[in-house]
Amino acid sequence: MPKDEYQSRDFKVVGTRPIRPDGIDKVTGKARYGADITAPGMLWGAILRSPHAHARIRGIDTSKARAIKGVKAVITRDDFTYQPEDSDMADILDNCMAGETARYDGHAVAAVAATSKSIARAALAAIEVDYEVLPHVTDVDEAMKPGAPVIESGRQQENVPKGYSENVTGRSQYGHGDPEEGFKQADLVIKRSFKTAATHQGYIEPHACLATLGSDGQGDLWVCTQGHYMVRNVCAGVLGLDAGQLRVTASEIGGGFGGKTHVWMEPTALMLARKSGKPVKLMMSRDEVFRATGPTASSSVDVKIGMTKDGKITGAAATYRLQAGAYPGGIAFLSAMCGFAPYDLENVRTEGFEVMTNRPKAAAYRAPGAPMGAYPVESVIDELCQKLDLDPLDARLKNAAREGTKSSYGPTYPAIGLEATLKAAQSHPHWTAPLGPNQGRGVACGFWFNFGGDTCVSLMVNPDGTVSLSEGNPDIGGSRASMSMMAAEELGVPLDQVRTIIADTASLGQNEVTDGSRVTFAVGLATIKAARHAVEIMKERAAMTWGIDPEAVDWRDGAAHPAGPNAGKFPPMTIKEIAAIASNTGGPIAGHHEVNAEGAGVSFATHMVDTEVDPETGAVKVLRYTVFQDAGKAVHPDYVEGQFQGGAAQGIGWAINEEYIYGDDGRLQNAGFLDYRIPVASDLPMIEPVILEIPNPGHPYGVRGVGETSIVPPLAAIANSVSRAAGVRLTSLPMSPPKVLAALKAE
Amino acid sequence: MPKDEYQSRDFKVVGTRPIRPDGIDKVTGKARYGADITAPGMLWGAILRSPHAHARIRGIDTSKARAIKGVKAVITRDDFTYQPEDSDMADILDNCMAGETARYDGHAVAAVAATSKSIARAALAAIEVDYEVLPHVTDVDEAMKPGAPVIESGRQQENVPKGYSENVTGRSQYGHGDPEEGFKQADLVIKRSFKTAATHQGYIEPHACLATLGSDGQGDLWVCTQGHYMVRNVCAGVLGLDAGQLRVTASEIGGGFGGKTHVWMEPTALMLARKSGKPVKLMMSRDEVFRATGPTASSSVDVKIGMTKDGKITGAAATYRLQAGAYPGGIAFLSAMCGFAPYDLENVRTEGFEVMTNRPKAAAYRAPGAPMGAYPVESVIDELCQKLDLDPLDARLKNAAREGTKSSYGPTYPAIGLEATLKAAQSHPHWTAPLGPNQGRGVACGFWFNFGGDTCVSLMVNPDGTVSLSEGNPDIGGSRASMSMMAAEELGVPLDQVRTIIADTASLGQNEVTDGSRVTFAVGLATIKAARHAVEIMKERAAMTWGIDPEAVDWRDGAAHPAGPNAGKFPPMTIKEIAAIASNTGGPIAGHHEVNAEGAGVSFATHMVDTEVDPETGAVKVLRYTVFQDAGKAVHPDYVEGQFQGGAAQGIGWAINEEYIYGDDGRLQNAGFLDYRIPVASDLPMIEPVILEIPNPGHPYGVRGVGETSIVPPLAAIANSVSRAAGVRLTSLPMSPPKVLAALKAE
Repeated sequence: MPKDEYQSRDFKVVGTRPIRPDGIDKVTGKARYGADITAPGMLWGAILRSPHAHARIRGIDTSKARAIKGVKAVITRDDFTYQPEDSDMADILDNCMAGETARYDGHAVAAVAATSKSIARAALAAIEVDYEVLPHVTDVDEAMKPGAPVIESGRQQENVPKGYSENVTGRSQYGHGDPEEGFKQADLVIKRSFKTAATHQGYIEPHACLATLGSDGQGDLWVCTQGHYMVRNVCAGVLGLDAGQLRVTASEIGGGFGGKTHVWMEPTALMLARKSGKPVKLMMSRDEVFRATGPTASSSVDVKIGMTKDGKITGAAATYRLQAGAYPGGIAFLSAMCGFAPYDLENVRTEGFEVMTNRPKAAAYRAPGAPMGAYPVESVIDELCQKLDLDPLDARLKNAAREGTKSSYGPTYPAIGLEATLKAAQSHPHWTAPLGPNQGRGVACGFWFNFGGDTCVSLMVNPDGTVSLSEGNPDIGGSRASMSMMAAEELGVPLDQVRTIIADTASLGQNEVTDGSRVTFAVGLATIKAARHAVEIMKERAAMTWGIDPEAVDWRDGAAHPAGPNAGKFPPMTIKEIAAIASNTGGPIAGHHEVNAEGAGVSFATHMVDTEVDPETGAVKVLRYTVFQDAGKAVHPDYVEGQFQGGAAQGIGWAINEEYIYGDDGRLQNAGFLDYRIPVASDLPMIEPVILEIPNPGHPYGVRGVGETSIVPPLAAIANSVSRAAGVRLTSLPMSPPKVLAALKAE
Repeated sequence: MPKDEYQSRDFKVVGTRPIRPDGIDKVTGKARYGADITAPGMLWGAILRSPHAHARIRGIDTSKARAIKGVKAVITRDDFTYQPEDSDMADILDNCMAGETARYDGHAVAAVAATSKSIARAALAAIEVDYEVLPHVTDVDEAMKPGAPVIESGRQQENVPKGYSENVTGRSQYGHGDPEEGFKQADLVIKRSFKTAATHQGYIEPHACLATLGSDGQGDLWVCTQGHYMVRNVCAGVLGLDAGQLRVTASEIGGGFGGKTHVWMEPTALMLARKSGKPVKLMMSRDEVFRATGPTASSSVDVKIGMTKDGKITGAAATYRLQAGAYPGGIAFLSAMCGFAPYDLENVRTEGFEVMTNRPKAAAYRAPGAPMGAYPVESVIDELCQKLDLDPLDARLKNAAREGTKSSYGPTYPAIGLEATLKAAQSHPHWTAPLGPNQGRGVACGFWFNFGGDTCVSLMVNPDGTVSLSEGNPDIGGSRASMSMMAAEELGVPLDQVRTIIADTASLGQNEVTDGSRVTFAVGLATIKAARHAVEIMKERAAMTWGIDPEAVDWRDGAAHPAGPNAGKFPPMTIKEIAAIASNTGGPIAGHHEVNAEGAGVSFATHMVDTEVDPETGAVKVLRYTVFQDAGKAVHPDYVEGQFQGGAAQGIGWAINEEYIYGDDGRLQNAGFLDYRIPVASDLPMIEPVILEIPNPGHPYGVRGVGETSIVPPLAAIANSVSRAAGVRLTSLPMSPPKVLAALKAE
């Protein structure tokens, strides 16, 4: 891809830190989240959920519920008469509303719509479900054993070798060379097994939506989601509707982190709306969020790495087993892709197994699969460095992937920033700061490939010369600010002349979900292209006014300038002047860009963390944390730093405290923020962000996605720090006090 | 303008009568009108209005109101610190919130926002306004007299001859030839004076809006309006905001008829929102709608026409005096433009005077100015025909404007449909049906020039091949149906594959108001062009897939077909197939079109009506009514017929019953539907619509606007019918029972 002018560009807006455009609305309570909308005649929906981890549904008697005054609709799977042909859609339908089998604690089995919340609750209590409880399995290793209860037969893909439990649904493989040959060349080979727990994204805002659906198939949905186009397409696919008849508007969003890239209940809301003939609001409680939406997968991993005395990795292999819940959707391949991606290796092989269990469908969670991909690899590299007495940053630099490296998952890298992050880490004061007793310092690297995808942007020049920018991705990480900044940069106007909004699905073409760290890259690319389209039109209008050729017009500083032989012949026409005569020169001025954006630059980070282990309690305290990450170009550094800090904070929770705890009965025992403990402010030190800028050649300004990579290194960085502080290698997350204490005692 | 293929086109969708896409939502109560939206923390706004027709505001004490618990903001004109430079904006501001002077009964003088409606009402009652009552004038002829109270000094334009009252703000003139010379050639010259009353549009839904406005100038407005872009631009202009920072969404609309083409209270809602820091809802009562929004102008008109014995009009002149209320906005010129527009005249002159009074600003009302433009002209022509014993249709045909006629207001007509409507009237059974005692039959012609204007449309091909169409004009007369139909026609897909929505101001470029009968013409034009843009892209994608040149691809029946030398080489690719591979062939597919649409074809109608006059009471009963009108091309004939019928129905009310009644104190005495009587179903016969189709060469399918012309002929047609039934010429509207009885007695 040809490079744009970014390398020599003198940015005026991009790279500054203006106050966020959504700030006032959010702090004054005006911003409207998923539950903040109502409609005349609206009903309240509620969902009945299985208390069993695995049960056959022999029958559901809804007659008593239907008889309650104020109950306007009761639905079960029987009401979903359309059977999707597409297997993904069929899965989503089955996950939204159980058919013959409830497959996890919290699986929806019926739903109601009523004139009040309390009537809806009463109606749920009046529904009688006849369950035949079945054996269950919730642990990934248990689920892989021969003879384990089978969650659902017939799902195993052909790429799974014979002899595996039917719960193993898929296998993926990556790599090149021959690790066994590589191990022979090593001075030290370490093989270890690791486990990580399922953790939830922990977004503040529970899922909520408001649905209408007419008998003509025309519906409207207001929903808290990371991707309202995805919601539209999925709901249409699940219910047999035309996508064009369903208009979906994304609410303001109180966090998603991947957990809102899926559809959990929106088809239910639409079906209740259709059956009742009224608008229906559905809101999850926190308990429902935990039990019935997707955490990330728990994992069980074997890693084997060989290293020479001078730190060269000669062979590398890993087997990832990911517990994907009752509706596996492809996550193991991501662990297998990402684990060794930071390194330039001759001999590397990974395989990933996708495993069904009686748990909620595993969902995307910030760089899905990559943290448990990196954690075992970076742990073993650290142990090799310890045992070979090598500097862990030096050793990583020795093996670091560079421009031209053939990656462990296939592609050859263009310009990348891993080396820059490692060198920045080496020269940072944190690296040489003294440590006290029971303290350790860990480092680890992380990778995320980033993504582009379908993207549409429209940029309108209003009659007063101000600019309206319309994009189709819910703003989770500050994209309204970033898009306004890139548009202002490109048009040469002050930032306050641009407002960016998130269009609904009927107002703008298809957009991929806000995921894959794609938005600043892909929507930014489309924004810049849409702005350039508008500039071309404005140059034409100026040329028309001046009576010269549009080719002989330049655009700079928010104005058209006569150029070449016409230079200086006419005074510049500003965007306001051109906008004022738009009607008389052809009509309104708008730039558009629709693209499947390619060229998202891969992203690397190095994290450094100091911890202290309390030898009496096993409690781990995070003392200091520094993130070094390549942003390509930081459009709004505040938001970039926020992404760096947020990923690290979530990684700290995942490493030390967070875990789904299932009882022997297969029920989730900690479905709330009191028992599922995410880090609070007092658990965290200041997380120092260090932004590196190695331009992505695939973006006009060099932008790379930054949102996900930051959660990849923390598990290993903290585990390495704790292992060095404790003097014993920790191989199971979370490193909660009992586990750390047990490890210390075993030492 | 080159003609499109419409003349030979075999339409598949256009011209059919599918059920309306907004029907289910409207009849089930799901459609959301202006008052049907709420926001968390929302306040209720209310407006205090002057009880005086004219008063100086010496002071306003808001202290008691502000002290009431739950009152969050009280504003007066002092809070509007921005003073618009633009005189139109300054006028709108002054009309929305009086400055030093209250200029009509109902003029806003203060406003409050409170936590409940009742607190808001209590706060209004606690505001103390110190008025100095001034002399007032509400009648147009009185206001023109020397010595009449002056509503506002300094507004008289230079084109007003010396000697007129300062209340006469403007004068416009049209015509050619010399009427006085023409009168000399006539066998009969009649000069008469006429009066019409102010009438309200009578839309069902009162004005309502919900506003937020942050201290950063970023705001959102949900509003019932005919033009949310106009609302955005006006509110920005009045309050000194950037248009791009204000996002305006149009609600569903319960009627407008021109009365919602203005801004009456939205800046007040925004100012209350800014001052309170909360969302504020403002809703007008019916009383407020009557007192403080604009009815059409009342008028006083002199007309003089000379005719030969064989029906040739030799000279024509008219003077229109329009009572424009306290904030005259230019309506008299429209009467002067339209009065003689149906005729091919050698000698014609008209002049129009705009006159200020102590009444609410006169607003647009369906073909604004044209009904009182046509009424006196068509009355005098009818009287000439009576006295010369001529057939009134024959006489009109003799003088009818045709293609090539230089119109009375300047332009030369292209292909037009007046003759067709007159001939259709002549051959219709209504024309020869027998009449009973006290019955009369009247005919009249009417004209409206129609309009195009700034228009933007985006057409998105969704991943499943269905189509989303985004336009920016509130749907009053069925435009969502019509646009979907034109898009389906152009794409060659079934109608149910397309859904049209009304985008907000931040999602699509500038659009003129839904007025001037412009939408089916202009938005239709842009829809067809946007569809053609999308077709070009789809042809490219198919060509890419086939590996052939895009020029060698045809589009028909919703599919790309290889053509020319490639014909038959590949099976056609349907829109669904092309949509399914869009991501892999470049990205999402969308067509866009932005245009200042020109070429709106002028429109003519002939109305025929039978009435019966009760000689004892003076009551007029409408017995039979037939509308003959040229639609160019009727996209959805049901809606076209509805426009024909609706215009006639409103004209019946205007002719017979409706009038603003002001007391000597200058206060409106009938501000409600009990005392201001619009026709109800039992007042009306079946109104038979006859659609003529003379294609407009300015539109690809030949479409002309149809919404306004239908209200132009009724006043005269009914007056002519009543005059013939009563045996006496009626010259003042409404022809209410007392007036008719007085005329009968004077005979």
